[in-house]
Amino acid sequence: MKKIKMGMVGGGPNAFIGAIHRMAAQLDGQIELVCGVFSSSPQRSYEYGRTLGLKASRCYRHFNDLLEQESSLPKSQRMELLAIVTPNHLHFQMASEAIKHGFHVISDKPATISLAQALTLARQLACSDVLYALTYTYTGYPMVKEARYRVHAGELGTIRKIIVSYQQGWLSGKNAESTKQASWRLDPEQAGLSCCMGDIGVHAANLAEYISGQSITHVCADLNTAYEHRALDDDGTVLLKFGDEIKGVLLASQVATGEENNLSISVYGDKGSLKWQQQNPNSLTLRYADSSMRVIRSGVANESSLAVANTRLPAGHPEGYIEAFANLYRNFAAQIRARQLVQPPCDKALDVPGIKEGIRGMMFIDSVVRASGSSQKWHAVQGAQLHD
Amino acid sequence: MKKIKMGMVGGGPNAFIGAIHRMAAQLDGQIELVCGVFSSSPQRSYEYGRTLGLKASRCYRHFNDLLEQESSLPKSQRMELLAIVTPNHLHFQMASEAIKHGFHVISDKPATISLAQALTLARQLACSDVLYALTYTYTGYPMVKEARYRVHAGELGTIRKIIVSYQQGWLSGKNAESTKQASWRLDPEQAGLSCCMGDIGVHAANLAEYISGQSITHVCADLNTAYEHRALDDDGTVLLKFGDEIKGVLLASQVATGEENNLSISVYGDKGSLKWQQQNPNSLTLRYADSSMRVIRSGVANESSLAVANTRLPAGHPEGYIEAFANLYRNFAAQIRARQLVQPPCDKALDVPGIKEGIRGMMFIDSVVRASGSSQKWHAVQGAQLHD
Amino acid sequence: MKKIKMGMVGGGPNAFIGAIHRMAAQLDGQIELVCGVFSSSPQRSYEYGRTLGLKASRCYRHFNDLLEQESSLPKSQRMELLAIVTPNHLHFQMASEAIKHGFHVISDKPATISLAQALTLARQLACSDVLYALTYTYTGYPMVKEARYRVHAGELGTIRKIIVSYQQGWLSGKNAESTKQASWRLDPEQAGLSCCMGDIGVHAANLAEYISGQSITHVCADLNTAYEHRALDDDGTVLLKFGDEIKGVLLASQVATGEENNLSISVYGDKGSLKWQQQNPNSLTLRYADSSMRVIRSGVANESSLAVANTRLPAGHPEGYIEAFANLYRNFAAQIRARQLVQPPCDKALDVPGIKEGIRGMMFIDSVVRASGSSQKWHAVQGAQLHD
Amino acid sequence: MKKIKMGMVGGGPNAFIGAIHRMAAQLDGQIELVCGVFSSSPQRSYEYGRTLGLKASRCYRHFNDLLEQESSLPKSQRMELLAIVTPNHLHFQMASEAIKHGFHVISDKPATISLAQALTLARQLACSDVLYALTYTYTGYPMVKEARYRVHAGELGTIRKIIVSYQQGWLSGKNAESTKQASWRLDPEQAGLSCCMGDIGVHAANLAEYISGQSITHVCADLNTAYEHRALDDDGTVLLKFGDEIKGVLLASQVATGEENNLSISVYGDKGSLKWQQQNPNSLTLRYADSSMRVIRSGVANESSLAVANTRLPAGHPEGYIEAFANLYRNFAAQIRARQLVQPPCDKALDVPGIKEGIRGMMFIDSVVRASGSSQKWHAVQGAQLHD
Repeated sequence: MKKIKMGMVGGGPNAFIGAIHRMAAQLDGQIELVCGVFSSSPQRSYEYGRTLGLKASRCYRHFNDLLEQESSLPKSQRMELLAIVTPNHLHFQMASEAIKHGFHVISDKPATISLAQALTLARQLACSDVLYALTYTYTGYPMVKEARYRVHAGELGTIRKIIVSYQQGWLSGKNAESTKQASWRLDPEQAGLSCCMGDIGVHAANLAEYISGQSITHVCADLNTAYEHRALDDDGTVLLKFGDEIKGVLLASQVATGEENNLSISVYGDKGSLKWQQQNPNSLTLRYADSSMRVIRSGVANESSLAVANTRLPAGHPEGYIEAFANLYRNFAAQIRARQLVQPPCDKALDVPGIKEGIRGMMFIDSVVRASGSSQKWHAVQGAQLHD
Repeated sequence: MKKIKMGMVGGGPNAFIGAIHRMAAQLDGQIELVCGVFSSSPQRSYEYGRTLGLKASRCYRHFNDLLEQESSLPKSQRMELLAIVTPNHLHFQMASEAIKHGFHVISDKPATISLAQALTLARQLACSDVLYALTYTYTGYPMVKEARYRVHAGELGTIRKIIVSYQQGWLSGKNAESTKQASWRLDPEQAGLSCCMGDIGVHAANLAEYISGQSITHVCADLNTAYEHRALDDDGTVLLKFGDEIKGVLLASQVATGEENNLSISVYGDKGSLKWQQQNPNSLTLRYADSSMRVIRSGVANESSLAVANTRLPAGHPEGYIEAFANLYRNFAAQIRARQLVQPPCDKALDVPGIKEGIRGMMFIDSVVRASGSSQKWHAVQGAQLHD
Repeated sequence: MKKIKMGMVGGGPNAFIGAIHRMAAQLDGQIELVCGVFSSSPQRSYEYGRTLGLKASRCYRHFNDLLEQESSLPKSQRMELLAIVTPNHLHFQMASEAIKHGFHVISDKPATISLAQALTLARQLACSDVLYALTYTYTGYPMVKEARYRVHAGELGTIRKIIVSYQQGWLSGKNAESTKQASWRLDPEQAGLSCCMGDIGVHAANLAEYISGQSITHVCADLNTAYEHRALDDDGTVLLKFGDEIKGVLLASQVATGEENNLSISVYGDKGSLKWQQQNPNSLTLRYADSSMRVIRSGVANESSLAVANTRLPAGHPEGYIEAFANLYRNFAAQIRARQLVQPPCDKALDVPGIKEGIRGMMFIDSVVRASGSSQKWHAVQGAQLHD
Repeated sequence: MKKIKMGMVGGGPNAFIGAIHRMAAQLDGQIELVCGVFSSSPQRSYEYGRTLGLKASRCYRHFNDLLEQESSLPKSQRMELLAIVTPNHLHFQMASEAIKHGFHVISDKPATISLAQALTLARQLACSDVLYALTYTYTGYPMVKEARYRVHAGELGTIRKIIVSYQQGWLSGKNAESTKQASWRLDPEQAGLSCCMGDIGVHAANLAEYISGQSITHVCADLNTAYEHRALDDDGTVLLKFGDEIKGVLLASQVATGEENNLSISVYGDKGSLKWQQQNPNSLTLRYADSSMRVIRSGVANESSLAVANTRLPAGHPEGYIEAFANLYRNFAAQIRARQLVQPPCDKALDVPGIKEGIRGMMFIDSVVRASGSSQKWHAVQGAQLHD
């Protein structure tokens, strides 16, 4: 079985997310990195590609070179998949160009920096044979998949309430914006409408929709800028409605001093509830009205087949973030292989976020920013009705 | 040293909170129960008093009998302190009568069922020599006191964000209201304006104000009735402002299936943050921007003297809810003894919630109910400016 | 219902265990302290009794005064129960005298300082109407009772292995023995054959036998004196056999720097295992070969009736060490009342450690000290065959 | 920078450890798998290699083919490093042959199945230019490295006690030995002298020696066979001496029903103690005699540079077992590169277990098996004096 050939745009020397994409892509031996453009500086791009062990001829200096030269290679050598790991404002254009050239795309989130762009991308994809994946990483954790399975199986009864929280502390302090990452994330030109909600709030919203199988329809939002000279939010809370019956709350902060990447979600139904926390990712806690608490553990009996399929190790050998990320790549690789063989992919492989989730994310960010600026309490999520 | 003589109103056979007040009052050997009215049924009141080992002559059938007959006893035998543990709607009148008769009062929360009543009670107390305590129990935990101390000492820097959450599941399910406690808590006549916010939301608000030393000035509220036939809220979320600089969120639910009494608070400042959870009450976690996490443990070196004074056991022998509750009684007993000796009480003894906290609680409930019914986002906490 | 009248010997100003016995005895309103001898200094004993609110006439200066004067009081006023909370070497003589005078006895552990004394006490009790309880406190925790219940119900299958560990750090450091408690615990005259095993190892052994329902039959021991000038052990490990089929390990230390009172036990059977830890006392973890983990929580559905009967609060309001201790007193009070009414006590009340457990404790200490001094590996627990 | 070319022997279709070696080797893009023999069945070996994407010419059918044909390839294509992941009894011979052919070796543990073999291998290595690594995986965790650093820096003071425990449940139940892995691990011909101690006890012993920097000098052992028809131990406890001053205990079990891979270690010194647990691998707890507890977290301020160098992700994105394993490969790759450049490797790269740790492991297994069969308590670790 040949490895799928991947190129990368972005992810140079100090971009931690690029390294993670590379590790995630290669972990399972399904994908190999063959080319890339790693920096906006042509020289740095070339040099960095060389340190990654790429052939000199495939360490490109410009994005256009990558597309054109790869397209001209014989099919057996050519890049098949492009990973986009640049700052947000470039995602749309690069994805769009890659699709035009017939390359499959896996993009860091958010898909774009506006809802209009996301809708455009969706239309483009609908008219092409190209596959598209969006790295909402947290849906790759086996216990997140287990949570989704348990909700869908009706184990919690009718869902009533969802609480999702993502707390970070890295933007706490007046001088926190001196890092390269902080500077682009707080810059509306590069990051889009929102920093905190665009970076992590949207992950939390995706997680809530993924596990519950419900769409956020209305929001009431309070975005904050703890350090007032900043151009975008670094903290916020959003009250949620998922239709008429389910209420929720989404908390996100990048100024929660001392928090690492404290993502957690609780879903409450009539019959039971569940809780998952990234800091203890291999456990899923289930509580019931009339029975004692259960803790589902990766690799232990009683898991769903979807969770099993996304677990690599025997129970008690902890798997973490890279493994969750790699599940997205591995499942997407299976989609690509099935496409190449003109056959349907297995169920497991379908469980990768795509442009639909990208659109939902942009709707969420748009609505939240609009709601936060209003003195009215509730605001419909624009276009929520589009979501099937 | 003589024990302080206590009477009790409420707290009959099936009222769990009455038994807890008695355990808390007597734990430290400072207070003895000498009389009471334990039920609205005169006969049941008498009989229950007897099972508690009280003299027959002091097992009263009516509240008025209690007040009058105790008043007529010689001072050396007479009740000195009345504990009020009835449903909410009776708190005000009973406290008011007891004060008129010169008895010190310790009341279960909320102090009253309206802000007007609470203000009346405060005026009455201001013109009397009687002491008044309100059992916001959670302020009795040593690690909650430690948290307050750390914030006041500036250890977290400027406070930016407060998240407080109180999750219970006992009202989950359509049939949950069949218990005696559920029936009065969901009845506006007995419980007041709110069930969930009045019962547990107000505890969470008090905890946030106690630890942070800040007052909630504005709220945006979404109260819910998960089971629509109920007359009062059983769930809700409140966005908070503490003045212009500090944002917060208060989450409370009684339909969070499987949650026990999951009260937790996180306070974030520029320099550090803290987290406390009732389910692990003897630990206080401190996180910093630039150093590793510390866990303060009851009884271990490095605690404040206030926490030490409210701890009974060597480290690692867990103390819990009854001990926290007993700290309120013990400290209030010290206030009463000091008043009897016409001397100032020690600092520790002053750390008991009183009518000021009772007024804050009523303001909170009032504002939240009003805000929840409005389509506007933010609402000032009525009379918040009265708070010093 | 009248309270049972209790006297106390020991437990003066700086003796933390005396205060705990008083809190535990009085928590449930079943027992009242009426008299005592609180210090070996007659004057200090008198004065301390007064600060506890006792009548001057019942603040005794000598143990003999207590016995004789209480015996001469009318039955309605007389002490019924004596709590012994002195250093170890006095337990035997005081219990023996109290029994002769017809007083029920509740003694801090160990029952005596030699096996011979414990056997003598057992014979004396067998010929008297007096009841005797020994405060192996940890058996009072509801989740410990639940653990015992689950093992007896066969939920774990055939038991194969038991690991019990009690780690403290208070004797770490060369100067740790300067406290009053350290000085008598490290003195063979007052503490008996062993410090660490006599103080906490014996608790761990009792816990293992209580939960498993099995007796330790053989030991291989390594007792240590981390600080060589000490006359008794401050650390040790004991390999255990419970008959031919079950192996175990008991770890105990008082020089485990930074440990608080870290008592934990794991019991492994063919079908499942359980784990309980004092630092999280309201949870009991059950693991299975072929199913996901369950966590039994005090007050949540699915508990045994014995655990329910020993729980005071709704789930999630933590109960701790004092409540566990109070369960022993409350259950013993029920035994005493039943004896007074010449009727059998309820099952729940029978669940209090007594002289049989006292004898087992002395056998354990004896055997471990002997085994530790030997170069042979295994040693029979002396008299283990006496245990039914 | 070119990737190092790796071959593999063992690790076929159902051998989970082979897949882990491949993931660990490739995670950081330093090493690529180019050839291998994956099964004792020539045909299955060939086919499996093909599914891994290897060239047909390098999917070997026999180990000798691998050695000879790779040796004959031009240097730029030739395998440089051989990973040995077969059952234990083949490790020695294969490592020895590979060394003779000039290939670097990374071997799954144990190094050999006898101490004599391990000593032979060490002598062979001493006379060659080849590098050798042994995958004691747990030393790859950043917080294990942090623990070692803290002990060496004297932060705990003089070490007094070490407790290390490794609990698994996979061999619980009479039918547990039906799996392929169970059958060879319980077979003395393939596994060597011991199952439980040889498989996991030796990991625990290595962890204790690695963190403490001390050697086990004496053991007292009790190995068990919970299911009597088994030919080797499935459980055991070992009392330890590290010289005259430090005592310890090692607990290991494969019949601890419901345990996953519960590896934990506590090290106690005069001034402080530390605890690490695989189930929460990114935290290291430090406790002190006179200060509050600290929790060091991977990626948070206050770590040693060695821990930082072995961490890939920002704090709070959990890293796990594969990442720890990959640290061994990455560091060994750096050793190999340095050797190729005839320069000294960086400090970080030296932190990989090698033949010295292999010898220590064989000494441990040998001594424990001998001690367990003896009625004497203590036994010297054979050749312990050889360890520097």
